[in-house]
Amino acid sequence: MSLTGQPPAAVLVFQTLLQHGPLSRAEIGRRTGLSPGAVTKSATPLIADGWITEVGRPTAERANGRPATLVAVRAARARFVGVKITGDELIGVLADLTARPLASRRAALDSRDVGTVVLAIARLVQQLRDTADVGEADAIHGLGVTISGDVDGQTGHVQYSPFLNWRRVPLAQLVESATAIPTVIENDVRALTVAEQWFGAGAGLSSFALVTVGAGIGAGLSVGGRVISGAHGVAGEVGHLPVGGTERTCTCGNTGCVEAVASTHAITEQARQATGDAELTMEEAVRLAHAGDPAVRGVFTHAGHTLGLALASVANLIGPERIIISGEGVASYDLFADQIRQTFADHAFGAAADCDLVVRSLPFEEWARGGAAVAAQRVFAPAK
Amino acid sequence: MSLTGQPPAAVLVFQTLLQHGPLSRAEIGRRTGLSPGAVTKSATPLIADGWITEVGRPTAERANGRPATLVAVRAARARFVGVKITGDELIGVLADLTARPLASRRAALDSRDVGTVVLAIARLVQQLRDTADVGEADAIHGLGVTISGDVDGQTGHVQYSPFLNWRRVPLAQLVESATAIPTVIENDVRALTVAEQWFGAGAGLSSFALVTVGAGIGAGLSVGGRVISGAHGVAGEVGHLPVGGTERTCTCGNTGCVEAVASTHAITEQARQATGDAELTMEEAVRLAHAGDPAVRGVFTHAGHTLGLALASVANLIGPERIIISGEGVASYDLFADQIRQTFADHAFGAAADCDLVVRSLPFEEWARGGAAVAAQRVFAPAK
Repeated sequence: MSLTGQPPAAVLVFQTLLQHGPLSRAEIGRRTGLSPGAVTKSATPLIADGWITEVGRPTAERANGRPATLVAVRAARARFVGVKITGDELIGVLADLTARPLASRRAALDSRDVGTVVLAIARLVQQLRDTADVGEADAIHGLGVTISGDVDGQTGHVQYSPFLNWRRVPLAQLVESATAIPTVIENDVRALTVAEQWFGAGAGLSSFALVTVGAGIGAGLSVGGRVISGAHGVAGEVGHLPVGGTERTCTCGNTGCVEAVASTHAITEQARQATGDAELTMEEAVRLAHAGDPAVRGVFTHAGHTLGLALASVANLIGPERIIISGEGVASYDLFADQIRQTFADHAFGAAADCDLVVRSLPFEEWARGGAAVAAQRVFAPAK
Repeated sequence: MSLTGQPPAAVLVFQTLLQHGPLSRAEIGRRTGLSPGAVTKSATPLIADGWITEVGRPTAERANGRPATLVAVRAARARFVGVKITGDELIGVLADLTARPLASRRAALDSRDVGTVVLAIARLVQQLRDTADVGEADAIHGLGVTISGDVDGQTGHVQYSPFLNWRRVPLAQLVESATAIPTVIENDVRALTVAEQWFGAGAGLSSFALVTVGAGIGAGLSVGGRVISGAHGVAGEVGHLPVGGTERTCTCGNTGCVEAVASTHAITEQARQATGDAELTMEEAVRLAHAGDPAVRGVFTHAGHTLGLALASVANLIGPERIIISGEGVASYDLFADQIRQTFADHAFGAAADCDLVVRSLPFEEWARGGAAVAAQRVFAPAK
């Protein structure tokens, strides 16, 4: 049995338990608006098939004078593998139904050739399967592969991935053939947002944005419990909001993009210009800024201002409850945090400024976990 | 009976009929994923209470060898009034369940005092009731009042409306007391977006944006069948995206806002500077631009460029299927349309540029109809 075949009420009961932990049947009814009869009717086959289970001792709460029993999701009921592809390595995690990691592994990529990468994914999945002592044949329910770029999760095609220089690669199908595991693919930032939405800093929020700052600048936007994917596969492109002034040209060919000012590469380039040192690295730029070099500090401040304008744009359009800032760039976040907050406060319109800005350090294993969350979501939140 | 008390499956059946017209029960099942039994069980009480009805002749489609009957929404089942408040008049429409206008009226406002406006709304509603020969006591199911500004539909408060200079006005409650009709309030652009989503240029789209250009510049964003309202009541503030350069200061106090460059007022001001004529009106500026005055044409081109950046920002973040451009400003749309499209095409990222840009002229009666649609939505799409 899969949750996919279940009626909408059963899916709703399951999702409510997934997000709000062990609950009594009465509390499930209150939260879903389902009648007691409908809750019981939905829960019974889910319990029979091991998706949810009764847990712990009855609480003090009493229905009809009897103690109420709590029910909860059985996280061990299904396992998923998530893999993130970067330009030079694969990061994989094996996770349970709630995307809790059970094991993780990395594998270096010596080629970006599609065939080589697909075989490396299959090998990594096999190693994760072995480490975790997964015996049953159907024990891995799904595999989620994530990659930066324009990814069409519906058709399973990577339309364009700049870091790997892939175009129109039917990645889901290739990986599924190589692993014999049902496979979904997703843009890596959106996958990370799915994980945060169900099991991270976005859980329980009506809306939030996850903005990642590093070699690229992107975002996942979660509104009403769904991550926005865009009618044409493009959404959350914070890095290409035209708020950055006209001085610098972006890798996409435009002027004005946030990425042209605030990506790791852009900051390094501007720090080289500011210091006249054509060999300066990002690490050295960070060191100079920490040491108080005014020109290099100015580069970080300008990047922070541009990021602040971008976050204000997100807040003015979507009005999220929270914006989570992450990515490799947060390692030097102290250098532009004040300016981000200042510019955000200046340009967020009215009550949009009440949006909570938080910084989260999310290592690549968390990104890989995003793949597992996307695969799990196909099971517990089938598309309508 | 209200739809509010119906189980989720019945609401789904009703909404499917509302958006996709007369359908056979088998087709309803295909579109909703409900079993034939569940469709019949949902439809029966809806038919009994007059919300939906069997229509026309059986189609050629046969279920179990018998001709299939079509069912459709009974638009006459419920009536709603929508009222838009502007700085100097009220515009009201009486509409059926599908927000089709049955009658409309305007009333001048000689004061912006809250009490005066509430009484004027009550009078207008009474006149609409009279004209339309509505006999039964409960014949008007709901009233939706819309107004520009920061409107909290949940609490029924107008938090701030700049044109009327209202702050924290419990408008829904005041109007409900004066009319004895269940009343909801909403931001006027969001209400117009609700009407477009269910019954207009947005019907059937997975996502769209409605951008209004005029004295103010705003937007409604519809994603996954819901208009985004923002966690703190602010969303769709296209007019305050910081893409407009630093030369001009906005009414909100910031530099960079789209509204500071492209609102009717901003265009007039810039045309005055360009011509040295401090008395120039918007109508005269339009005339000069049409006559080929290069300085005034430049003002419109700059406004068009700024609007294009704003629309590209919306496309890059949300990736809507369509952007609908409307508002008083579209009367002079020919003067900046080319530049809007050019800048949009330049700055929309990748496939986001496939978003369809359409211009719709929507008179204030359409905006008032938005109020009726919001009131109707409370009946047919109760909040979860």
